[in-house]
Amino acid sequence: MGPATHYFQFDEEFPMYRGGILPCLQLAWESWGELNETQSNAVLVFTGLSPSAHVASSERDPEPGWWERMIGPGKPIDTNRFFVLCVNSLGSCHGSTGPASIHPRTGKPWRLSFPELSIDDIAISTRLVVEHLGIKTLHAVVGPSMGGLTAMAWVKHFPNSTERLALISTACSATPMAVAIRSLQREAIVTDRNFREGNYSEDEWPEVGMRIARKLGMISYRSATEWQQRFGRKHQDYFPATLFGMRYQVESYLETHARKFVGQFDPCCYLYLSRATDAFDACDTDRGLRALFKRSFTGKALVLGVDTDFLFPLYQQQELASALEAVEADVHFEALPSVQGHDAFLVDSDRFGTPIGEWLR
Amino acid sequence: MGPATHYFQFDEEFPMYRGGILPCLQLAWESWGELNETQSNAVLVFTGLSPSAHVASSERDPEPGWWERMIGPGKPIDTNRFFVLCVNSLGSCHGSTGPASIHPRTGKPWRLSFPELSIDDIAISTRLVVEHLGIKTLHAVVGPSMGGLTAMAWVKHFPNSTERLALISTACSATPMAVAIRSLQREAIVTDRNFREGNYSEDEWPEVGMRIARKLGMISYRSATEWQQRFGRKHQDYFPATLFGMRYQVESYLETHARKFVGQFDPCCYLYLSRATDAFDACDTDRGLRALFKRSFTGKALVLGVDTDFLFPLYQQQELASALEAVEADVHFEALPSVQGHDAFLVDSDRFGTPIGEWLR
Repeated sequence: MGPATHYFQFDEEFPMYRGGILPCLQLAWESWGELNETQSNAVLVFTGLSPSAHVASSERDPEPGWWERMIGPGKPIDTNRFFVLCVNSLGSCHGSTGPASIHPRTGKPWRLSFPELSIDDIAISTRLVVEHLGIKTLHAVVGPSMGGLTAMAWVKHFPNSTERLALISTACSATPMAVAIRSLQREAIVTDRNFREGNYSEDEWPEVGMRIARKLGMISYRSATEWQQRFGRKHQDYFPATLFGMRYQVESYLETHARKFVGQFDPCCYLYLSRATDAFDACDTDRGLRALFKRSFTGKALVLGVDTDFLFPLYQQQELASALEAVEADVHFEALPSVQGHDAFLVDSDRFGTPIGEWLR
Repeated sequence: MGPATHYFQFDEEFPMYRGGILPCLQLAWESWGELNETQSNAVLVFTGLSPSAHVASSERDPEPGWWERMIGPGKPIDTNRFFVLCVNSLGSCHGSTGPASIHPRTGKPWRLSFPELSIDDIAISTRLVVEHLGIKTLHAVVGPSMGGLTAMAWVKHFPNSTERLALISTACSATPMAVAIRSLQREAIVTDRNFREGNYSEDEWPEVGMRIARKLGMISYRSATEWQQRFGRKHQDYFPATLFGMRYQVESYLETHARKFVGQFDPCCYLYLSRATDAFDACDTDRGLRALFKRSFTGKALVLGVDTDFLFPLYQQQELASALEAVEADVHFEALPSVQGHDAFLVDSDRFGTPIGEWLR
């Protein structure tokens, strides 16, 4: 949360998609550019599993955002033309209500007493902010990674409420390999001696589990090809050697990412968002993905993917594009040749910027 | 260890490749078929990281081995023709000396006081058994997975001591992705609360770490394609649900493998063998892999790999084949179309049997 973060308070009960009720909620959001008079130039960006609503810097908050090169004046998502909105996902810990928030009645963090989170809840709660801003129809919904699942939940719950839909490095549901990786990340966290069924303290943080989860995450986010080019078998001397570890550069790279992550993300929020990602399935309706799009979205679509993506492999984006084509949406599909795997949309954003910018022009 | 296991005792000091000395050692081995009068029909099989010397069943031990369909009368490695030998790797815990063995002077397990293990030590110690059996020249050395590294260490230390060399789903060194995965497995074990710097007890076993290591291993051994075909998004009801887990079949599959492994393999042995696998590098000599083969092996070679192998990707087998071709070895290279990833050599052994059988005929 930074100086540009707004907080939307919703003081009514919020029924969760899979049962349970939040007595009230708060959503952190940021925006860039100006909403026009007819409220017709809004672009809603959904995030991946862990980022905040700080997609890009602004005058009020010069800190670079997680998609800094994508959003701004003259950038692919051009804030001279568009009002860009991003809401921190419900269930996350960057200003929105989630398992790390204080329960209004007990005065303690929700932790495992938080009701089961669904990707649908993220979409439905985001709608509250969109309505609060007086926006009825969106110009575009842009969803990378888990944000692509949320974008599909959006069109499912609010049919024909966006003119355009961009699904980036995402899928209609997780592969069993992705489920295997995420369930193992969760196992590492809940088996950490400090997790204590969610009763961890600041002093005894489930750091070991979070570190393993983050390193396993990085293994799934990047590609073997990238690491071969970048690290090869080079040794590292940045961190001291550990018992059976810290010999190679790839290890110090993972260590750096793990150290950054451990202090930044709440373990319970991670568990809830991770499980929600596994459970979401836009293909499992009676009539499947095509029926969903036919009923809810036949506008202008963009589907992007990367050939080295291990977590959301390219054939999953091809499936999305095929389903959109089958319902005669105006779909542009591109397979981008990046070595940076699933994270390419974040780190190779120049390559993604061109098709996104052209699609919005 | 079973009724067909032999034990070779070496009562002299054994200097380890990277320093340190074993005061004596024991090696467990098995054989199939008969050694001919000229001792010219011996096939030496090296194992992957965790298997024992029990490659196949026999009259003395009817229990199926880890490469049951590959070795036996009329099978691809035909014991009507060949004397087949397999030695449990030094450093392992299936009858050979390793970190789980009792130190002859202290009367306690070696654990972390065991000297650093190198793949070279496995090759050099195996030579003791080969010499003990009176074999001077091998008909073939066959090395799948980590056993392929050991096979290369064999030719490096004992040039031109085998007529044939089969390198299967292996490489001259580990990729940074493989190092990332294995170093994370080791981190999960050493950070287990019960590991206690190697002083774990039978009652308080580092089970959590071993389970995570094994599950992560399975993720690297199989392929996303196989799991998509086999499990899809099917739910499981074999194990009770856990906190944030055990919802999908892929999870119960990993759980089954983890439970089997935890009781079977010693944590320290796993750590030593895993680190040795990362550290081995047959490409890092002054003149590289070609120089190694030119000096040590220019006979009849077989190189096999699988297009879905994540741990030892196919381009690594292509590198081995190219280096062998460059030194004018008689090399047959085949890329097998299996969905079963690195483990294909074990589980899809019919597919591997054909080229291995033809190559030996």
